[in-house]
Amino acid sequence: MGEYEHVLVKRDGETVTITMNRASRRNSLTEEHLRELLAAFTEVGESDATGIVLAGAGPVFSAGHDFGDVAERDLVGVRELLQVCTRLMHTMQSVPQVVLARVHGLATAAGCQLVASCDLAVAAESAGFALPGGKGGWFCHTPAVPVARTIGRKRLMEMALTGDVVDSVTALDWGLVNRVVPDAELDEAVTELLGRATRGSRAAKALGKQTLYSQLDRPEDDAYRIAVEVMAAASQLPGAREGMAAFLEKRKPDWPD
Amino acid sequence: MGEYEHVLVKRDGETVTITMNRASRRNSLTEEHLRELLAAFTEVGESDATGIVLAGAGPVFSAGHDFGDVAERDLVGVRELLQVCTRLMHTMQSVPQVVLARVHGLATAAGCQLVASCDLAVAAESAGFALPGGKGGWFCHTPAVPVARTIGRKRLMEMALTGDVVDSVTALDWGLVNRVVPDAELDEAVTELLGRATRGSRAAKALGKQTLYSQLDRPEDDAYRIAVEVMAAASQLPGAREGMAAFLEKRKPDWPD
Amino acid sequence: MGEYEHVLVKRDGETVTITMNRASRRNSLTEEHLRELLAAFTEVGESDATGIVLAGAGPVFSAGHDFGDVAERDLVGVRELLQVCTRLMHTMQSVPQVVLARVHGLATAAGCQLVASCDLAVAAESAGFALPGGKGGWFCHTPAVPVARTIGRKRLMEMALTGDVVDSVTALDWGLVNRVVPDAELDEAVTELLGRATRGSRAAKALGKQTLYSQLDRPEDDAYRIAVEVMAAASQLPGAREGMAAFLEKRKPDWPD
Repeated sequence: MGEYEHVLVKRDGETVTITMNRASRRNSLTEEHLRELLAAFTEVGESDATGIVLAGAGPVFSAGHDFGDVAERDLVGVRELLQVCTRLMHTMQSVPQVVLARVHGLATAAGCQLVASCDLAVAAESAGFALPGGKGGWFCHTPAVPVARTIGRKRLMEMALTGDVVDSVTALDWGLVNRVVPDAELDEAVTELLGRATRGSRAAKALGKQTLYSQLDRPEDDAYRIAVEVMAAASQLPGAREGMAAFLEKRKPDWPD
Repeated sequence: MGEYEHVLVKRDGETVTITMNRASRRNSLTEEHLRELLAAFTEVGESDATGIVLAGAGPVFSAGHDFGDVAERDLVGVRELLQVCTRLMHTMQSVPQVVLARVHGLATAAGCQLVASCDLAVAAESAGFALPGGKGGWFCHTPAVPVARTIGRKRLMEMALTGDVVDSVTALDWGLVNRVVPDAELDEAVTELLGRATRGSRAAKALGKQTLYSQLDRPEDDAYRIAVEVMAAASQLPGAREGMAAFLEKRKPDWPD
Repeated sequence: MGEYEHVLVKRDGETVTITMNRASRRNSLTEEHLRELLAAFTEVGESDATGIVLAGAGPVFSAGHDFGDVAERDLVGVRELLQVCTRLMHTMQSVPQVVLARVHGLATAAGCQLVASCDLAVAAESAGFALPGGKGGWFCHTPAVPVARTIGRKRLMEMALTGDVVDSVTALDWGLVNRVVPDAELDEAVTELLGRATRGSRAAKALGKQTLYSQLDRPEDDAYRIAVEVMAAASQLPGAREGMAAFLEKRKPDWPD
């Protein structure tokens, strides 16, 4: 894997862990940091790994944008920063791997956006989630995009307007994360859920998650138009053929990819 | 009611129960089975019944598509199968009756899609729900369409990617079903909820549920454009007139249809 | 503040409380009442208040449309009534203030729509919520629009089809309200949540909530297109500049507006 200044990329079997590694700056997201994350997701996306864990080094998951990198920018400069950020979120959803957020400590603003944009999320009990722009002068407009699509509207409004921290148990209740576990069991729970989410045909999963994001947030008829075409085509892929044959022959499938 | 090979249609008062009756094949959905369900819903839809219960005979609710009917099809053949399936889901939402899923045992893949596509759902405690395509080679692209519109995004991703069974209590917590009851009380709970959902003006309910599906998953302004026109027109219907008159005159309404 | 016949408008510090004051008619919403609410929200929206509480006088929050004002109208007359009502809901979302529903007693039909349309909602334990059109002859088509966007689909169908009252604890579980408190603590809880939701830069909050409503219920890519442009522009506002400067200089911000 490539070498990065702010990001650690480590492969272990089928899984690659991408770790935000600016602990001294609470993994805040300068443009350089975002570009490295984007490069890392793109690189791993092209590999044959089946799962990606997004983690943060140090005391928190991520504090969101680095105000030191925003304060001096003009409108065009901030737009460019946010476009890189949006491209990262989009790439996390379009890579073929299952992407899982491993959340400890705080995930705030664009850090919370990262959690909402991962396919799955496992949080330590001590984790917290916030859209703190609502407290201050720069509202969390873009972080609210995936958060709005993950939790209910009144809960979104509460997070976005108060800016206060939502604890892990509430985040689980609202559907922002899939699991909450004691802090000491975080890695174990990440491995367990990712293992279940990545078994089977890699090609089928990839097409599956990519298609899910295409059909969400659309009128149901439009969603079916997308899903029917993809599913019909997908039935002809070697993985689907093998899955059905194995089922009908009552044997374990031998996935072709 | 018409005679079917794989489907039982039984009327009891105002309610018609449509039962998938291929217990030996776990009520899996061949094209023939889907076409019979479509014909049954269309037939009952044209009757004066007020409610439809969708049930399954034997140990499970429905195992989804029958791989024996998929494995040999080419792309065009699978597309046709999925289009019939989508037409069934659409018809369940467009018939004037309230449609309620009576779920026992497993509801998997297109079986889970049926549950998500019914207006209401009551599940036995022992019921389970899964999108198992995520485990194997043929991802549950189309079943995920209504499931995505019923539960939260992270929960959808977990069901779709892991393929594992979600128990009835979790399904209730996530909003996939309206009630969970002890297995022995399933029929009683179905009758109770359907009774409350079908009382009143049949014409008003029909227009109500049909309009709800039209306005969902659209920007709020677009939804209001639909709902205001329908509601203004609906105010002139005999049922609405009688409902308001009865309320104002403090008497029980005498529904005209 | 202006004088109204059916509405009380009272300012206390930064907060204005708009109270529906037709207790003898259970705060039902005639066209005149709706037009006064619309005028009041518009007037307060142009003031420098930071928060608006919407409350009801007497035993209930609001019983929805007044059938006495509907029964004699033709289609064009009802459409006009519903358009005023829709304009009120839209105005509540477009005013710069945070709007919070203070719910006690019943909130039914358009009364429930008001709760769903507020940014936030705090309910007394004894409060109840219903879309009772499903029981009678005039289905709650327009109230279902914001309710559908606040709770899950199966729960919406249950409310809309049965018309039965959902208690406050269930409403909290479904995300229709943000808090449920003992009746005696309702005002205290309203003040507490609104205080947290309105602190900070007023201009940033206003842009924040207005943009949230613009990006909801759209495909994620479309939502990002809106949010990125607004957030880039917002970074140049005095509030955002001051918020970032204060953070970087580790001092309390001095909001410019």
